[in-house]
Amino acid sequence: MAVYKINPIGRIRTPYKERGQAPRQTIYSDGAEGIIEIYNKYLEGLEGIELYNHIIVLFYFDRSKKYDLKARPPSSNRPRGVFATRSPYRPNNIGFSILRLEKVEGNVLKVRDVDMLDRTPLIDIKPYVEKLDKK
Amino acid sequence: MAVYKINPIGRIRTPYKERGQAPRQTIYSDGAEGIIEIYNKYLEGLEGIELYNHIIVLFYFDRSKKYDLKARPPSSNRPRGVFATRSPYRPNNIGFSILRLEKVEGNVLKVRDVDMLDRTPLIDIKPYVEKLDKK
Repeated sequence: MAVYKINPIGRIRTPYKERGQAPRQTIYSDGAEGIIEIYNKYLEGLEGIELYNHIIVLFYFDRSKKYDLKARPPSSNRPRGVFATRSPYRPNNIGFSILRLEKVEGNVLKVRDVDMLDRTPLIDIKPYVEKLDKK
Repeated sequence: MAVYKINPIGRIRTPYKERGQAPRQTIYSDGAEGIIEIYNKYLEGLEGIELYNHIIVLFYFDRSKKYDLKARPPSSNRPRGVFATRSPYRPNNIGFSILRLEKVEGNVLKVRDVDMLDRTPLIDIKPYVEKLDKK
């Protein structure tokens, strides 16, 4: 079966150095500030990103060493399937957050509402478009 | 620099066999039906997914053979950076859609609003939670 390779395109700097410090989701981050640094190789890909107030950020849970098909959601004591939770211990350790984009300066994006650990590898940025993504 | 490996956890069946047939986004899919088949190895991870009306689906644009740092958004003739678009030709070819979950039967999820090509590799499913994800 095919295996796909992911090359990080940058790194996310946040106030959360260790597991347990990061909020469970962006809405619990209290507007915490973070910085996304894009590697120079990909800089041209950022053109126009400043048009958006929010961005979709995909990142790699690089401190999750193994996964568990069962996880306990914060709202319950009963474990359920990992795909019915936002647990960072997933078969493919990709995280998803919608962040507020405050400023773009060269290869640096200033963002708010970060909920990932400091130095988390960045995989992708996509524009968040309210009429496409709101359900 | 670290490279991460992605192992598909299933496959997405949709009515769109060829590039150019798939709608640009889920909202243009006219409620098109699709089927997500999870490989048996990951079946246990689905428990509880039926609690959600919508799911976040990450998938791999496996028919995109190379990427371009510039892309032309549908709304404009002027190319912009790929990260300011939803183009499928990305440095890491990961797609993101929010799909309506209609039914779960064993390892099969019946979904609507599909916008990906038939047999697209599935990478992850996460619950869409309105209060977390609506901006």
